[in-house]
Amino acid sequence: MRAALMYQAGDVRVEDVPDSRIKHPTDALVRITASCVCGSDLHPYHQMTAENGPARMGHELIGIVEDTGSEVSTLKKGDLVVSPFAVSDNVCEFCRESLQTSCSHHEANFWDGIVDEGGQAEAIRVPLADGTLVKLPVAPDSALIPSLLTLADVYGTGYHAAKLAGVKPGYSVTVIGDGAVGLLGVLSAKRLGAERIVLMGRHQDRTDLGREFGATDVVAERGEEGIAKVRELTGGHGTHAVLEAVGHMPAYEQAFGVVRPGGVISRVGVPQYEDAPIGFGSLFRHNIRLAGGPAPVRAYIDELMPAILDGTVNPGKVFDATTDLEGVPTGYRDMDERKSLKVLVRP
Amino acid sequence: MRAALMYQAGDVRVEDVPDSRIKHPTDALVRITASCVCGSDLHPYHQMTAENGPARMGHELIGIVEDTGSEVSTLKKGDLVVSPFAVSDNVCEFCRESLQTSCSHHEANFWDGIVDEGGQAEAIRVPLADGTLVKLPVAPDSALIPSLLTLADVYGTGYHAAKLAGVKPGYSVTVIGDGAVGLLGVLSAKRLGAERIVLMGRHQDRTDLGREFGATDVVAERGEEGIAKVRELTGGHGTHAVLEAVGHMPAYEQAFGVVRPGGVISRVGVPQYEDAPIGFGSLFRHNIRLAGGPAPVRAYIDELMPAILDGTVNPGKVFDATTDLEGVPTGYRDMDERKSLKVLVRP
Repeated sequence: MRAALMYQAGDVRVEDVPDSRIKHPTDALVRITASCVCGSDLHPYHQMTAENGPARMGHELIGIVEDTGSEVSTLKKGDLVVSPFAVSDNVCEFCRESLQTSCSHHEANFWDGIVDEGGQAEAIRVPLADGTLVKLPVAPDSALIPSLLTLADVYGTGYHAAKLAGVKPGYSVTVIGDGAVGLLGVLSAKRLGAERIVLMGRHQDRTDLGREFGATDVVAERGEEGIAKVRELTGGHGTHAVLEAVGHMPAYEQAFGVVRPGGVISRVGVPQYEDAPIGFGSLFRHNIRLAGGPAPVRAYIDELMPAILDGTVNPGKVFDATTDLEGVPTGYRDMDERKSLKVLVRP
Repeated sequence: MRAALMYQAGDVRVEDVPDSRIKHPTDALVRITASCVCGSDLHPYHQMTAENGPARMGHELIGIVEDTGSEVSTLKKGDLVVSPFAVSDNVCEFCRESLQTSCSHHEANFWDGIVDEGGQAEAIRVPLADGTLVKLPVAPDSALIPSLLTLADVYGTGYHAAKLAGVKPGYSVTVIGDGAVGLLGVLSAKRLGAERIVLMGRHQDRTDLGREFGATDVVAERGEEGIAKVRELTGGHGTHAVLEAVGHMPAYEQAFGVVRPGGVISRVGVPQYEDAPIGFGSLFRHNIRLAGGPAPVRAYIDELMPAILDGTVNPGKVFDATTDLEGVPTGYRDMDERKSLKVLVRP
């Protein structure tokens, strides 16, 4: 079968790989009908060394169940399913607490950590299929597929940021980053009742979509200038919540620059740093809280799907380009060059 | 009048200083009847340079109102009052949100930031007296004074740690530090319903008091060994909440070593560092949250006082020595050498 492989930074190829197949009785084999490239795929696209390649890529997918292991009980051949970016059993103590990204099952993993499988491919072996996969009540060619695909990662991740930030009616929120996660953080904050949503981003086509999703203000400036602008918009105090959807240090520095005393910085951009300021001069003095991590999107799918199915929200608008599998390398390049916001892949 | 002054690290003296007196119409003049030395006073006792001295010391006090400015409306001469370690107007938007340590009034400050006043003295000028001071319904010589004095800082601070950590019935909690704040963090966690409370501390007289306050386990080991011990006690996963009541980097490292996935590290020890690990390898991977800061103890006094008055709790047990004002320098030395846990001062 065909699949995307990253050889090293900047080098993505689509090649023949061994067919995915059932290995364990709890596996399902899924024929992928929709997948995509993630903003977080751009981190290795910038940094990966040749020794770490070639690596299978892609962690967001919708597909049709083609085969199931003998112990799979909730799925059958022909079901259309969505897979979160992390595999989990959905029954351990952490999964029961809605923290599926810390599932304690020995097969639990991020797709990015499962070496022989990936979502940017024709098919995939899904471990712990009963726990991981969620059935979709639509046809594979439904117009809702792009929005439903965001449940695999970016919508659930934006929602996680807003939930952990405790966004509620009347809150003011700053969203740092105008990528798909940031924009869906805006949508999530709006749905949770935020009164004021300041989107920090520099790409007007994206921030326009952010306004459509609920942003009340857009700040294009960055660094000290951007911080001053947000403070100016908020009576000098900053916002109750900051959703940090980038992962680089300057974004974190902006976050503690614009957060209100007693507020929360909620990080869902994968940090590209380990040490960062958290002492008296940054977080401690004004009781700023820090939250975030890999989103347990599995926990949010049931909650978020109805408003997609009834058309209330359309998070799939973050996809502004579609390609087949052979076009995946171009998709990476276009996203890296900011020509595309997020590329949908139809294998 | 007599007052304690710190000249530099290790050098505390009691000297004559100008009498405190009313300066603004919102001030009160308070004759101090009980004060104390704080664990956080030991930070300058270790680090202060001569250029920063001499500095007035002491931020926890009970006393009798001796005079009030013309605009003070809720207090009168003869009232016995307790002062939080921070002065606040108690009416601004942050105070109304119970974040008095971020009060936006221009006179709001920590006592440690008000240069000509201090609690280790015969008297004190209290700015924003109506907002800051809380009346005590006991006599100045009541046996409850030590416990009521903990409302000025250490009990409220331990309680803040437990509240921000979201401690609730069934929770497991690790408390790092067996100083007064750590021990009152134990008491607070117990009162909030924690099921298991692991106290990390090395001084048996203190950890014995910790057990009396509600600790179910004591871990004397530190660093990797201490982390392993706590993990062993908690099925390998760590505890839902960690109250960090020290402020040094090794305590923070212990904190993220013993916290459970999805858990909270709540810091009330004043950080003696600015940068610290918060990336994928420490907090992010398992959605560890970070909370804490200077406790708005003013917000907790009304809540915590009744159980002191009716004898349900006795946080004053953290005082294991009493001195007059002239004995303050010895009090610092004894606390620094761990001969005393916390020294009560009766001017």
